[in-house]
Amino acid sequence: MPTLKELADMVDGNLVGNPKLLINGVSTIDDGKPETITFIGYKKYNKYAPICKASAIIVKNKVLLNNLNGIVVNNPQEAIVKILEYFSPQYPEERGIHKTALIDSSAIIGKNVSIGPNTIIGKDVIIGDKTKIGANNIIESGTVIGKNSILSHNIHLYHKTEMNEMCIIHSGAIIGSDGFGFFTNGDKHIKIPQNGGVVIGKNVEIGANCTIDRGTIGNTIIKDYCKFDNGVQIAHNVLIGKGCLMAAHVTIGGSTKIGDYCVFGGQAGAIDHIKIGKKAIFACYTAAMKNISGNKIYSGAPAREIKEKNRRDAVYIEVKQLKKRLKIIEDKYLN
Amino acid sequence: MPTLKELADMVDGNLVGNPKLLINGVSTIDDGKPETITFIGYKKYNKYAPICKASAIIVKNKVLLNNLNGIVVNNPQEAIVKILEYFSPQYPEERGIHKTALIDSSAIIGKNVSIGPNTIIGKDVIIGDKTKIGANNIIESGTVIGKNSILSHNIHLYHKTEMNEMCIIHSGAIIGSDGFGFFTNGDKHIKIPQNGGVVIGKNVEIGANCTIDRGTIGNTIIKDYCKFDNGVQIAHNVLIGKGCLMAAHVTIGGSTKIGDYCVFGGQAGAIDHIKIGKKAIFACYTAAMKNISGNKIYSGAPAREIKEKNRRDAVYIEVKQLKKRLKIIEDKYLN
Amino acid sequence: MPTLKELADMVDGNLVGNPKLLINGVSTIDDGKPETITFIGYKKYNKYAPICKASAIIVKNKVLLNNLNGIVVNNPQEAIVKILEYFSPQYPEERGIHKTALIDSSAIIGKNVSIGPNTIIGKDVIIGDKTKIGANNIIESGTVIGKNSILSHNIHLYHKTEMNEMCIIHSGAIIGSDGFGFFTNGDKHIKIPQNGGVVIGKNVEIGANCTIDRGTIGNTIIKDYCKFDNGVQIAHNVLIGKGCLMAAHVTIGGSTKIGDYCVFGGQAGAIDHIKIGKKAIFACYTAAMKNISGNKIYSGAPAREIKEKNRRDAVYIEVKQLKKRLKIIEDKYLN
Repeated sequence: MPTLKELADMVDGNLVGNPKLLINGVSTIDDGKPETITFIGYKKYNKYAPICKASAIIVKNKVLLNNLNGIVVNNPQEAIVKILEYFSPQYPEERGIHKTALIDSSAIIGKNVSIGPNTIIGKDVIIGDKTKIGANNIIESGTVIGKNSILSHNIHLYHKTEMNEMCIIHSGAIIGSDGFGFFTNGDKHIKIPQNGGVVIGKNVEIGANCTIDRGTIGNTIIKDYCKFDNGVQIAHNVLIGKGCLMAAHVTIGGSTKIGDYCVFGGQAGAIDHIKIGKKAIFACYTAAMKNISGNKIYSGAPAREIKEKNRRDAVYIEVKQLKKRLKIIEDKYLN
Repeated sequence: MPTLKELADMVDGNLVGNPKLLINGVSTIDDGKPETITFIGYKKYNKYAPICKASAIIVKNKVLLNNLNGIVVNNPQEAIVKILEYFSPQYPEERGIHKTALIDSSAIIGKNVSIGPNTIIGKDVIIGDKTKIGANNIIESGTVIGKNSILSHNIHLYHKTEMNEMCIIHSGAIIGSDGFGFFTNGDKHIKIPQNGGVVIGKNVEIGANCTIDRGTIGNTIIKDYCKFDNGVQIAHNVLIGKGCLMAAHVTIGGSTKIGDYCVFGGQAGAIDHIKIGKKAIFACYTAAMKNISGNKIYSGAPAREIKEKNRRDAVYIEVKQLKKRLKIIEDKYLN
Repeated sequence: MPTLKELADMVDGNLVGNPKLLINGVSTIDDGKPETITFIGYKKYNKYAPICKASAIIVKNKVLLNNLNGIVVNNPQEAIVKILEYFSPQYPEERGIHKTALIDSSAIIGKNVSIGPNTIIGKDVIIGDKTKIGANNIIESGTVIGKNSILSHNIHLYHKTEMNEMCIIHSGAIIGSDGFGFFTNGDKHIKIPQNGGVVIGKNVEIGANCTIDRGTIGNTIIKDYCKFDNGVQIAHNVLIGKGCLMAAHVTIGGSTKIGDYCVFGGQAGAIDHIKIGKKAIFACYTAAMKNISGNKIYSGAPAREIKEKNRRDAVYIEVKQLKKRLKIIEDKYLN
């Protein structure tokens, strides 16, 4: 069990109070537990400091500690991430290549790679060093997975998927399935072959049960540092720029291009064949239905700049006022 | 094949007509099949009684039977559930522990447990008596599953998931994956370790391909008697109160607390960090975007009480009327 | 590598330019690559013809080729589908029945069927000739799969699912899980047994991670030529008419009947117990909330004919105008 002093050193912070205080975990400021450390990341949580039962608090503003034990740092969120990492529960792990895994003899497997039970590795697959692949995964022929990546379980990477280093793929994700492309001739829908691939950058995290389709001609592209929550759907030939954050159940339509560092709230999305500029922020449930320039916050379906959205929502009040004003004139001049 | 008399006894109902009538299944009142029994659950179906081809009808109001065979009960829906259970098709089932299952020697497996092919049971897992676990499931270390539960196939329970007795988990569900937590520093998204767990009460049913994330600090909690349809997404540190019903594709954002006995229609949801009071009913496609007191019906995005929602929708008509009234005044007084 | 002449013959087109030109793939008109063929499917792409670096272009209007090599056809989209098929990458395939597949002795397996590793085939399952079933699939007892079908990986077909010939099922799809049916008595939700099945026509394609529930009484029905994108959810006792197209994350509520040749954009859907006429087109994010006659385009939540939707959206502008007009009168007559 570390002391408060040891934790303060770990986060380059200034210790306040008892350096020998023992800390055995992390709790939240509104539900602080004895013998744990907590933190104040936003002003709205300041009120909890005096009544919090945690043994120590990480703060930016020393005044908040009053007579309490704690650590003063520039960025409490950054500090708590380090401390959470320190206290991360360690689970037992099977390492190495499980005897039930089916690995094609042409596959190139890096050093210190783990491959779980019943996982299937196809022809010419390349897996980088130190990558951990769980159980029941299917990695089809020609797929490349970079080093230091983690694939959980029940994942399917179709043929020739490319993924750079340090990616994390959660369970049930399906990458490289056919794009939704049909050519309708009379009353027949004819399947358009999906000959492209999926190319994923480095440091990308893809949530549980996400689906990312391969391109028709050319590739579907997810750039570096993108992070997807569960159940995100990316259609064929989409381009997602660097560092985009997409919350659960986001749906991006075919061939749409999303600029760098966009944020999509839960169930938000964009229709097909549009362009979104960089740093656009879409509130939950927002639906981008035309090109959007970016750098602003958007809301509603169709997505509008939040100011315009609010003005539109205000129409209800304005109509009430108009009725009153009209009534005054009618009463005076009509009849 | 049971007689109508036997079925009447089974549901504690009063037999009307021929006690020896043989019944070999259940059909619906609007598509009644000979030799089956059907029921009338709502008044709007009364009109089908005289033309229904089923051999017998379960009703509350005896008058509806006229000269037909049937059973009179207090609650026809409750009665038909019993009869559906009686007629439930029985599928062959492999019982016991399949030889391809990989079970860690430290796991504690109760009596009369079934474990299907290729299922992996990790260290220190505890599985209660009579629980049935299908094929290709991955139950990671430290997870606890209560007795009399059913897990279908291709399911992944991450480390230290806790689930009480009599739960049903459908195929493809993923429980305990990392919450969507990143700390953005400049243009880097730094992963916040997800150290918490998932705790699920008793009698909970979780649909196919649902995703439930583990807590960051503390747990994601699903209380007793909750029922989730397919594709429901529950983010980290959410609390779902007792007996909530969530239809398909519902999305609940991180740290949101939902009161007991709430109902969410399909594709409805709630953003992160809000509180919903008990017995709130959200229509399909409704998005709760702020704290909501509960005990009412809500609709729209953002969610509003249905009365206010309707008033807002009426603005379109009101503006038409305002235009007419204004025109009258303009015609009279302008020029 | 085929010549332009060979490709022209393949699509029954008229060759323009060099018949011996070698073509080694397909590219898009706005990103044409040397040594490839491309096509112009819509007028808006005409502008790319003079600057495109592809070696040849498939067009309807010969004038567009000017001095370029190409093929003139009646329907460029139809032609490019044939050429994409020709250039479809061929992946190595394990054929036959893998030694780790677990196949019940009562199952009837057609000629030239492939069954992948760890796939489980239950009692009395029937699989038609030439059908390919991937790895880790679970096909439960009594299920029937028609000939010439393709099932990818990690798929679960519950008991007695029926699927006609030439269907394609992508990975992670779950077909035949229990419908979301509960009977609430006081504060208890009692499970209604789901005794029906799922019946799927021929030439149906079902995307990755789709979920289709079995009927309660009677079947959930998907008719011939339907095509579903990823993550589509079909509830119990739904009927989907012939040739419907459903984009990603569409949600259809229980017992709803959808007419032939309807189109649902991404995240669109229909609530339970309604009827949608044939050839209704629902824009992305549209929510059908009552019976809809069909043959028109609908948008919004609730879904309205697009004309009415636009009129409603125009209320915002109209109120602005009303305010100005009212101001003129007020200025003149009040005070």
